[in-house]
Amino acid sequence: MASPVPNVLTMGEPAGIGGEITLKAWAHHRHAVQPFFILDCPERLRGIAKALSLDVEIQPISGAEQAADCFTAALPVMPLVNAVDATQGKISLANAAAIMESIERAVAFSLNGEVAALITNPIQKDALYAAGFRFPGHTEYLAELAGGNMQPVMMLASPMLRVVPVTVHVSLRRALDLLSVDGIIRQGQIAIDALRRDFGIAVPRLAVAGLNPHAGEAGNLGDDEGRLIVPAIEALRKFGAEVFGPVPPDALFTPRARQGYDAALCMYHDQALIPIKALDFDHAVNITLGLPIVRTSPDHGTALDIAGKGVADPSSLVAALTMASDIACHRRDAQAD
Amino acid sequence: MASPVPNVLTMGEPAGIGGEITLKAWAHHRHAVQPFFILDCPERLRGIAKALSLDVEIQPISGAEQAADCFTAALPVMPLVNAVDATQGKISLANAAAIMESIERAVAFSLNGEVAALITNPIQKDALYAAGFRFPGHTEYLAELAGGNMQPVMMLASPMLRVVPVTVHVSLRRALDLLSVDGIIRQGQIAIDALRRDFGIAVPRLAVAGLNPHAGEAGNLGDDEGRLIVPAIEALRKFGAEVFGPVPPDALFTPRARQGYDAALCMYHDQALIPIKALDFDHAVNITLGLPIVRTSPDHGTALDIAGKGVADPSSLVAALTMASDIACHRRDAQAD
Repeated sequence: MASPVPNVLTMGEPAGIGGEITLKAWAHHRHAVQPFFILDCPERLRGIAKALSLDVEIQPISGAEQAADCFTAALPVMPLVNAVDATQGKISLANAAAIMESIERAVAFSLNGEVAALITNPIQKDALYAAGFRFPGHTEYLAELAGGNMQPVMMLASPMLRVVPVTVHVSLRRALDLLSVDGIIRQGQIAIDALRRDFGIAVPRLAVAGLNPHAGEAGNLGDDEGRLIVPAIEALRKFGAEVFGPVPPDALFTPRARQGYDAALCMYHDQALIPIKALDFDHAVNITLGLPIVRTSPDHGTALDIAGKGVADPSSLVAALTMASDIACHRRDAQAD
Repeated sequence: MASPVPNVLTMGEPAGIGGEITLKAWAHHRHAVQPFFILDCPERLRGIAKALSLDVEIQPISGAEQAADCFTAALPVMPLVNAVDATQGKISLANAAAIMESIERAVAFSLNGEVAALITNPIQKDALYAAGFRFPGHTEYLAELAGGNMQPVMMLASPMLRVVPVTVHVSLRRALDLLSVDGIIRQGQIAIDALRRDFGIAVPRLAVAGLNPHAGEAGNLGDDEGRLIVPAIEALRKFGAEVFGPVPPDALFTPRARQGYDAALCMYHDQALIPIKALDFDHAVNITLGLPIVRTSPDHGTALDIAGKGVADPSSLVAALTMASDIACHRRDAQAD
């Protein structure tokens, strides 16, 4: 039997908690996740393991196909060409080339099928600008590397809730101006497709949030619902899903309401991220929909303030590893049908 | 020993679940709450108890001082002058006078000290307009009855979280336009005063939310933080509280973040109400700060869709009764100091 296709993990910002949570994920959870390898510097990871007294064997590998065989005995690490010289908690612009190399090679492995899914450790954009990074964020960079000409969509998912924001990294005022019938339909359609293809839900139930308090209270508190959201909901019903709303935003995330849908389509960043981080911060995973590759990431940042202290929690990374495998599996099933 | 001063409960919309949850609160929780009476129609409540097979004795009373003595044996009900003829689930404009009478007399009892606190059952504004109701909401009506010339402030509180929104029942676009340094300071100051006087916290910790994603990311995602929120925070530090922020909105309500403050000052309705309803819908209580009387209410509506079916949950009303007593007690202590 051929070795299973592994997942690949990027280094992320080496001054942050990425190394520590990767080591902990392998040390404490390797029997519960599919084999993975990380594109990183083996010596660096050995140093962190030693400093934090984590009992992790590091196994340098030169090909993705070597990862699965050694995985139960050692953490497989594929070395980077670019040097990494990181102090925990302290950003150094000299590591930009290595950070980007890790991401670029991970995407290449994903595109050519040598890995099943890509999981990214958090980066800090401002550490990359000097090295030519010119994207609004990690996700847009991945979309460009994966071939460009696509509209990546962010989903946050945990066992308690899935949310997809229609607008993301813009001011709240700009989010109001950007909201359009077409935009809501486009993001909603990608969400419906993902629920079907990536989560195996034949007839997805999509709840659509209102924008204003009480979903506008029949126009008394804003007309965006009637003008934009209602028409978009009507259009989305053509895609073979149960689509309903606009739901008053504060009623959408109560325990009872959450039983009624598979994902909530939200109108702006914090409408989506406040409830999932409040409810399930440690198990929330960031999933990029609309890419030809499977990509997840933990739903937290580089956490420079606690890097190197041994207190970082690998739960969200472990959830991201598990979710990535589940999605890859559903996609294979969907292709086999 | 004199009888303890009771709390008073209003009837609310008689077509909604107010009667049912009041009967259930007395039936199942009377030994856990301070004595209360309700301004309502005794026959109506007897009818609901009978229809739902709730074992509740109804005791008509003519003065507030009679409530405490009979409370363990029967639910004290002070009859209304205006007639009530309600079908569960069906609004009738004919009940408007009785609904308003219940509220007006309850406020009068609060102002003259015959009751310790006022707890309101939910109303439906549109059922009252024909009878001359001309307020944006229940709370503004109470403020007018309590003497006018005051700025009532809504706090939502549960054992997990307290939130105070700076702007409330306006469209999100209007909320952005209304936000001002003075407005944030005013609401923040009332929140600080309430934490001290009503919750007995000597040095309150107030977290102030950002408005934009990532609290504006140093101006990249909006300038409201630097322009409005930071100056307001600096001003609020003069009021003897620990005030910090602007905190990225999606980071403010994680389990770890919630340990760091006594209340979160939020910039708009849903930023405050989404997390508390997601986390603790059944125990969230609406508290009106800035009034000369103590007023709480359950954090849900009239629930016409389930009225009369016996499935309404009295948890939020019970939490409102308990919270009202706690606040009244802290205010007495503060006055005695």
